[in-house]
Amino acid sequence: METKQLRVNGKRLQSTLEDMAKIGATPNGGVQRLALSDEDKQARDLFVKWLRQIDLEVRIDEMGNIFGFRKGKDNDLPPVMSGSHIDSQPKGGRFDGILGVMGALEVMRVLHENKIETKRPMAVVVWTNEEGTRFAPAMQCSGVWADALDRDWIYGRTDINGLRFEDELMRIGYKGETPAQKSDVHAYYEYHIEQGPVLERKGITIGVPKGIVCLHWYDIYLEGEANQVGPTPMEGRHDALCAAAQMILKVNELPSRMGGNLVATVGELQNEPNSRNIIPDKVHFTVDLRSWDDELAIKAWELVKCDFEDIAKERGCPIRIEETWRVEHSPFDSKLVQNILDASDSLEYSSLHMVSGAGHDASYMNQIAPTAMIFVPSIGGRSHVEVEDTKWEDCEAGANVLLHSMLQSANE
Amino acid sequence: METKQLRVNGKRLQSTLEDMAKIGATPNGGVQRLALSDEDKQARDLFVKWLRQIDLEVRIDEMGNIFGFRKGKDNDLPPVMSGSHIDSQPKGGRFDGILGVMGALEVMRVLHENKIETKRPMAVVVWTNEEGTRFAPAMQCSGVWADALDRDWIYGRTDINGLRFEDELMRIGYKGETPAQKSDVHAYYEYHIEQGPVLERKGITIGVPKGIVCLHWYDIYLEGEANQVGPTPMEGRHDALCAAAQMILKVNELPSRMGGNLVATVGELQNEPNSRNIIPDKVHFTVDLRSWDDELAIKAWELVKCDFEDIAKERGCPIRIEETWRVEHSPFDSKLVQNILDASDSLEYSSLHMVSGAGHDASYMNQIAPTAMIFVPSIGGRSHVEVEDTKWEDCEAGANVLLHSMLQSANE
Repeated sequence: METKQLRVNGKRLQSTLEDMAKIGATPNGGVQRLALSDEDKQARDLFVKWLRQIDLEVRIDEMGNIFGFRKGKDNDLPPVMSGSHIDSQPKGGRFDGILGVMGALEVMRVLHENKIETKRPMAVVVWTNEEGTRFAPAMQCSGVWADALDRDWIYGRTDINGLRFEDELMRIGYKGETPAQKSDVHAYYEYHIEQGPVLERKGITIGVPKGIVCLHWYDIYLEGEANQVGPTPMEGRHDALCAAAQMILKVNELPSRMGGNLVATVGELQNEPNSRNIIPDKVHFTVDLRSWDDELAIKAWELVKCDFEDIAKERGCPIRIEETWRVEHSPFDSKLVQNILDASDSLEYSSLHMVSGAGHDASYMNQIAPTAMIFVPSIGGRSHVEVEDTKWEDCEAGANVLLHSMLQSANE
Repeated sequence: METKQLRVNGKRLQSTLEDMAKIGATPNGGVQRLALSDEDKQARDLFVKWLRQIDLEVRIDEMGNIFGFRKGKDNDLPPVMSGSHIDSQPKGGRFDGILGVMGALEVMRVLHENKIETKRPMAVVVWTNEEGTRFAPAMQCSGVWADALDRDWIYGRTDINGLRFEDELMRIGYKGETPAQKSDVHAYYEYHIEQGPVLERKGITIGVPKGIVCLHWYDIYLEGEANQVGPTPMEGRHDALCAAAQMILKVNELPSRMGGNLVATVGELQNEPNSRNIIPDKVHFTVDLRSWDDELAIKAWELVKCDFEDIAKERGCPIRIEETWRVEHSPFDSKLVQNILDASDSLEYSSLHMVSGAGHDASYMNQIAPTAMIFVPSIGGRSHVEVEDTKWEDCEAGANVLLHSMLQSANE
């Protein structure tokens, strides 16, 4: 058969996603399938059963990462791989992660039923604990596999009940024999929902991120002077919450001020003593900056840091700033990105060259192998919430793009 | 003896205050003497001992309010009364409340040792649980006595460990026999630290509040849209914390905008989900407005409420506003206020006609009897904190003013 004519089975993809959505289903239409929970195990068991139905060779490594291998003509060549994660946020959605796994499974099913032989071997993969909400941090087991995180450190991570990662991995029966150790990968594709509103707003079907933006995390600590509000005149107050409010607005205005591609957010804030009749004397808040342009992000930070210091001085609220975490932007492999753009064109889907604002397992894979991602629209841009949704026709479109991008890489 | 020459014993006042400060002393120089705690009992026992030493008739009512009565020439006339509270904030100061009790005790000691006979009887009083931090609300037992609060409702109030007010009152042995029921009072004077910086800034010794400001409490609830910060562009965000930040600054600017005597504070704020990489979608904050001018406070609120609604609309963050509590300003008895001003003049202390920004037991007494207050400077305006402080010479000055104001009322 001429592979150019191949298409995924949209109805089958929808039905597998619907079956998965039953596992850990929440009352408001989302899923809760925390890493290494009973629901995670149930979804893994179903996935492994489906891998075996199409004769894939199943390997489970010591981190619980699940691989389904499909032989090629020359099995000495490094494989073409695709996958994502099965775990979800608490009260998360039915698409985040699982779409990339079911999409890659659907690709394998199409190749299997059409008896397609590729030059290189192929693999579908589930990475354990991408979300990091039960055991922090995120993207743990792609991180171990790619040699960026330490296996035993991850084993020792505990959840809020003090349960250890390794114990829970064994409990659900997914601590495998295979070492979690990187091997050569010819190409890694990850198919995912966008988790933002850009594609929907522009009416575009396929998003093709050129890479993942840089990420800066800062922690700001302000001190004020607590006093009873009634007898304390406005003049001479040192109100740490007012200082924080000014700073929050400076952060919010930063992207338009920089005139560039940047998002800036204050997501977390603690206020003390947090009593309605005492002037706040201790405020902590966070700043999250992301941009494709590392220089721009640093320049923005330097600017807003000056603003912070001016505001702190003006209000008489001493400030302490921690530069908590900085990750540089990470460009994907340009050849793979082009493969995805080409596949979209030949399938006659509209596509957009964009950036990924969120981290994914692809972030770690990008450190060790040619990597790229395929996005499809999130309805209303909503993600990590129960109402997270994506049109079935878009799920199908993304899987078709994945199929042809993988075929392109697998036959070269 | 000509009473005009009478003066309190400043050293003795200092020493009684220092003795009291040992009970519940905290490492950083404050006190922690929560209502109905062992420390409260210990301080009460000492106070009652001191009352008996100068032959005052001690009565303890069913709320634990302690009265020390001193006979006059005509004991059918309503008494002149003065007092405050023995309980403190957690990690509170050595002057809040207790200065008014020890000041009134010192007045009684001076009258006793000088064998002064007054026309009317006099009384010193300790009101149970003024602070309201262990059992909310504040000013409970002056409230019951003045018939503004219900006795059995107060009895049933519980602390964070579920202990009942009445049980704790009995445990420390201060549930008395006398009904907590108002009787005629000819004049009630309360001597207290200012708890604000006005007197110190102006270099004035005696503050004479013309009354207590009005108090408005509002609760604001904002809704935004939670989304992952990375993939969500700035445009189209509904960030509830940014909306709150704008509103907090509007509140802070309100007093200068109104050009009048007003304080406006946001003391409490809750932010959800309070995660550094999720846009906040639920924010609650409080507004506290106080002014001598009820009309001005209402006008200010109407203005800032419009601002809130505009900001909420502009940011697409639905707002819900609760008008939680409004108490009108409460003017003190002008004759008593004049007595205090006159006493300050004749004692050659500088004095300032001002307002009280905080509530006191005097608030409830003001509903049933001619009432006024005497303030002395708080160093740095600090109060409800361990560093709360007042100069000993100012403590003595305030007690002298109290002595002569009480004598004035007691002989008419």
